Amino acid sequence: MSEDRRVVVGVDYGTLSGRAVVVRVADGTELGSAVHEYPHAVLEQTLPGGERLGHDWALQVPRDYVEVLQNAVPAAVAASGVDPADVIGIATDFTACTVLPTLADGTPLCELDELRGEPHAYVKLWKHHAAQGQADRINALAHERKEPWIARYGGKLSSEWELAKGLQLFEEAPDVYARTEHWVEAADWIIWQLSGTYVRNVCTAGYKAVLQEGEYPSREFLEALAPGFGDFFEAKVARELAPLGARVGGLTEQAAGWTGLPAGIAVAVGNVDAHVTAPAAKATSPGQMLAIMGTSTCHVMNSDTLGEVPGMCGVVRDGITPGYWGYEAGQSGVGDIFAWFTRTSVPASYTEAAQQQGISIHEHLTNLSAEQAVGEHGLVALDWHLGNRSVLVDHELSGVLVGATLATRPEEVYRALLEATAFGTRRIIEAFEESGVPVTEFVVAGGLLKNRFLMQTYADVTRRPLSLLASEQGPALGSAIHAAVAAGAYPDVYAASEAMGRKDEAAFVPDEERATAYDALYAEYRRLHDAFGPDDGALGGLLHRLRAIKREAQA
Amino acid sequence: MSEDRRVVVGVDYGTLSGRAVVVRVADGTELGSAVHEYPHAVLEQTLPGGERLGHDWALQVPRDYVEVLQNAVPAAVAASGVDPADVIGIATDFTACTVLPTLADGTPLCELDELRGEPHAYVKLWKHHAAQGQADRINALAHERKEPWIARYGGKLSSEWELAKGLQLFEEAPDVYARTEHWVEAADWIIWQLSGTYVRNVCTAGYKAVLQEGEYPSREFLEALAPGFGDFFEAKVARELAPLGARVGGLTEQAAGWTGLPAGIAVAVGNVDAHVTAPAAKATSPGQMLAIMGTSTCHVMNSDTLGEVPGMCGVVRDGITPGYWGYEAGQSGVGDIFAWFTRTSVPASYTEAAQQQGISIHEHLTNLSAEQAVGEHGLVALDWHLGNRSVLVDHELSGVLVGATLATRPEEVYRALLEATAFGTRRIIEAFEESGVPVTEFVVAGGLLKNRFLMQTYADVTRRPLSLLASEQGPALGSAIHAAVAAGAYPDVYAASEAMGRKDEAAFVPDEERATAYDALYAEYRRLHDAFGPDDGALGGLLHRLRAIKREAQA
Repeated sequence: MSEDRRVVVGVDYGTLSGRAVVVRVADGTELGSAVHEYPHAVLEQTLPGGERLGHDWALQVPRDYVEVLQNAVPAAVAASGVDPADVIGIATDFTACTVLPTLADGTPLCELDELRGEPHAYVKLWKHHAAQGQADRINALAHERKEPWIARYGGKLSSEWELAKGLQLFEEAPDVYARTEHWVEAADWIIWQLSGTYVRNVCTAGYKAVLQEGEYPSREFLEALAPGFGDFFEAKVARELAPLGARVGGLTEQAAGWTGLPAGIAVAVGNVDAHVTAPAAKATSPGQMLAIMGTSTCHVMNSDTLGEVPGMCGVVRDGITPGYWGYEAGQSGVGDIFAWFTRTSVPASYTEAAQQQGISIHEHLTNLSAEQAVGEHGLVALDWHLGNRSVLVDHELSGVLVGATLATRPEEVYRALLEATAFGTRRIIEAFEESGVPVTEFVVAGGLLKNRFLMQTYADVTRRPLSLLASEQGPALGSAIHAAVAAGAYPDVYAASEAMGRKDEAAFVPDEERATAYDALYAEYRRLHDAFGPDDGALGGLLHRLRAIKREAQA
Repeated sequence: MSEDRRVVVGVDYGTLSGRAVVVRVADGTELGSAVHEYPHAVLEQTLPGGERLGHDWALQVPRDYVEVLQNAVPAAVAASGVDPADVIGIATDFTACTVLPTLADGTPLCELDELRGEPHAYVKLWKHHAAQGQADRINALAHERKEPWIARYGGKLSSEWELAKGLQLFEEAPDVYARTEHWVEAADWIIWQLSGTYVRNVCTAGYKAVLQEGEYPSREFLEALAPGFGDFFEAKVARELAPLGARVGGLTEQAAGWTGLPAGIAVAVGNVDAHVTAPAAKATSPGQMLAIMGTSTCHVMNSDTLGEVPGMCGVVRDGITPGYWGYEAGQSGVGDIFAWFTRTSVPASYTEAAQQQGISIHEHLTNLSAEQAVGEHGLVALDWHLGNRSVLVDHELSGVLVGATLATRPEEVYRALLEATAFGTRRIIEAFEESGVPVTEFVVAGGLLKNRFLMQTYADVTRRPLSLLASEQGPALGSAIHAAVAAGAYPDVYAASEAMGRKDEAAFVPDEERATAYDALYAEYRRLHDAFGPDDGALGGLLHRLRAIKREAQA
């Protein structure tokens, strides 16, 4: 076949559905796509058989992931109009940490008849938060023992990650733990299904399984955590590693049957939705911070420098693309906060006016507030309605709004909330730079990039040029780029990103006057941040006490 | 005539209208009432002739007050069905400080043809705030010179009072100042119109004209403030004084013609709306704090003790009723804050639900939030949306809301705002008690007493029995009580109050469990109060800087 006709398939596994995209290898053109929703979505109340789940549980059914291969992939190929024979590779990205127990051959334990009614046999989705107690003990012990790896994770491992979820399995369902031959990231499990080969990708191994400098947390640490748990990593987690963009193997006959793609084509190693987006957005050079902005924001950035940046989610060698230290940070609530405000705090006259203009309430509030000069509303907010994921790493914090008067209008509070999330991002950027890790450009992907006023505000507040990912299917495009590399169409991810990535360069640049005005508001944000955030702040502990009062009152 | 048939007339002069009530002397029964709106209402943009006013001006036309006598009084008498011959006295109460310049015979300067176009010739209403610059200089100089009277006013004279408004007149309109033979409280001017006699009542003389221990601020102080201003008090303000409840004289023939009442009946000395309400609510004993709760709250309380309570509006001997030290304090925004919230921050689904139930949005939010346990919303607010009138005495402060999450609902914020005003009241009560002035009972008058949940909350938060004024026309009833005393029907205000006042005693009592739960929330309110309020607080100055940023941005 002629080189011009070569295409690759990228599959993005989200929380509720999988999306396949067919992409031209030569220039990254997206030729067709299709979505398949998981039949079981997220199990939060009961198992499919009716067994009840505890508070904060979130499970999935692995067969749903295979259905995406069987449905979305052929549908995307059909929509693109390409000849399936022109497909030279496939790659996937996944939510993380999403993890499941399997037999040696990859069979999920939940598919064994005798374990169908056992919650611990299922996939624990990233937002399964029932292992918080385990995470608390892990962190306390790590600090007590001065474990060297803890600093690479901002001083805290998340309850979402492999270790806490694995410890929960060990403690709450020892029989299921005993049957578990592999504790597998879903990102790697789906590649195993495609290629017949199980290898771990370095990204989730580093960010979610605490692999640093080739080592997992020690047997001694694990034994001290829970007697009998000492061989958790050795026995259930450790596996051959593969760098991002590597070819794991060829598409199996079975997977070829599912997808309608040619058997033997390249299957790339597993990857993560946020990280895989960096090459799609041409944001892989040191100092290019990629923010995937939606309900929450995830930041990923390469750097030449290893800095121990306080309160980051993690730093992993080769964790985003090979050859760099890959940093990950985040903001728990962003679009979610704006949505909460429009749902709970905007009077009928506003929703009616938006309707009459045929625009969303978000657009209406943005239009009204955009007319004001910086600081004209007299407000500053803290964007902690869903806690603080990076810098403070504290999910018990909550939102603060300061400066309201009887003249304060809804669009002014809305704008203060938009600005608060920009201030939160600036705080993260400053934490990087204070640790000697420069941030030179801000690249945005995700649903919120459509709000031009918000983007300009981020450029002004961060005093950095702001570029946009010019694709609505960033993660799937990123996966396709990795598929092209795995297929040998490009020598590495960088070359593939250059040819296939899509960036609207410096779409917004900071305005000096507004940036200076925002400096003054940000100074007040910092004062509030430092007073309410750390335990030793002037009002440290106040937000925690309010949570405790609330919990007690509810009980 | 038989004693049973004796009645008195009380007239309450508010901001937009005057209300006359006819009351039976024997037992305080309200027999009839009528309202007359001021034809000119409040002049805020222009004079009646079209001359433009500056920012923050608020004037009135004195002839409007006389119209109330001509209209509301006869209408109330007609409504009551009593024989005018049975009326034995009349008394009034007024907003304060509301002040006007007159000739020696009481003619308002604005009624002189040559001064009709001169703003400074009109009545300056209590909420005329254009003398803030003068007030700032008065306070700075008073502290510099360590004037003894400043401590009696919580360390600050208000821009609303006679001295600041008089200095503004002197500086901005020297010719009008020169023509001014008396600088008269409207409370005293209206009595002058009824009786033909000009005396000053001790209440406004003390609270609004800085008369303490028989002395006004010194000539030296005034000269230092503005050369040539030294004889302001001597020449324009000082006048024979009369205690509250005293008979100033008999109703003149002219006033008898206006009102339809018998000439010669007792006319009581002038009084103020808040203060006159204390005997109406039977709240004249030491430690009974009367709160008039409406858009804002005014607190008045008698005490045996002279304490220098920081941040109060004033303490005046005999200022509420004879024989005690009368304290005044206040909260700038109360009902105004609740109204702002319902206007700006409640979605259509709530306003529609209220409408369907045929209740106000206030009632609907109260019903929803009343179901929760104390602290269940996880919120604390500072009630400073309109500044802080007492304790901090700072109108540049603004509102703060702490603890919001994505689960926070409108009724929860509404309740947090209700509670914040109760915490503000508790802070005032504590300031009294810390200065050795006990507060034993909380008595409520004003529109907000209809909200039973709010009343229970105040009882719980303050840990005090809460009584209610059992009349919808508290100030007018209070005036009627003073008329009865002036007419000699009772030996003093206390006896008249006992017979004619109306109190629903201990209508709400604190619940121990809720009170204990509120203690914990109040502790957090205090931390916020002390961090954001004083200049040397942990976040002191932050709210001021936000105001400054706002003003600069608006300019």
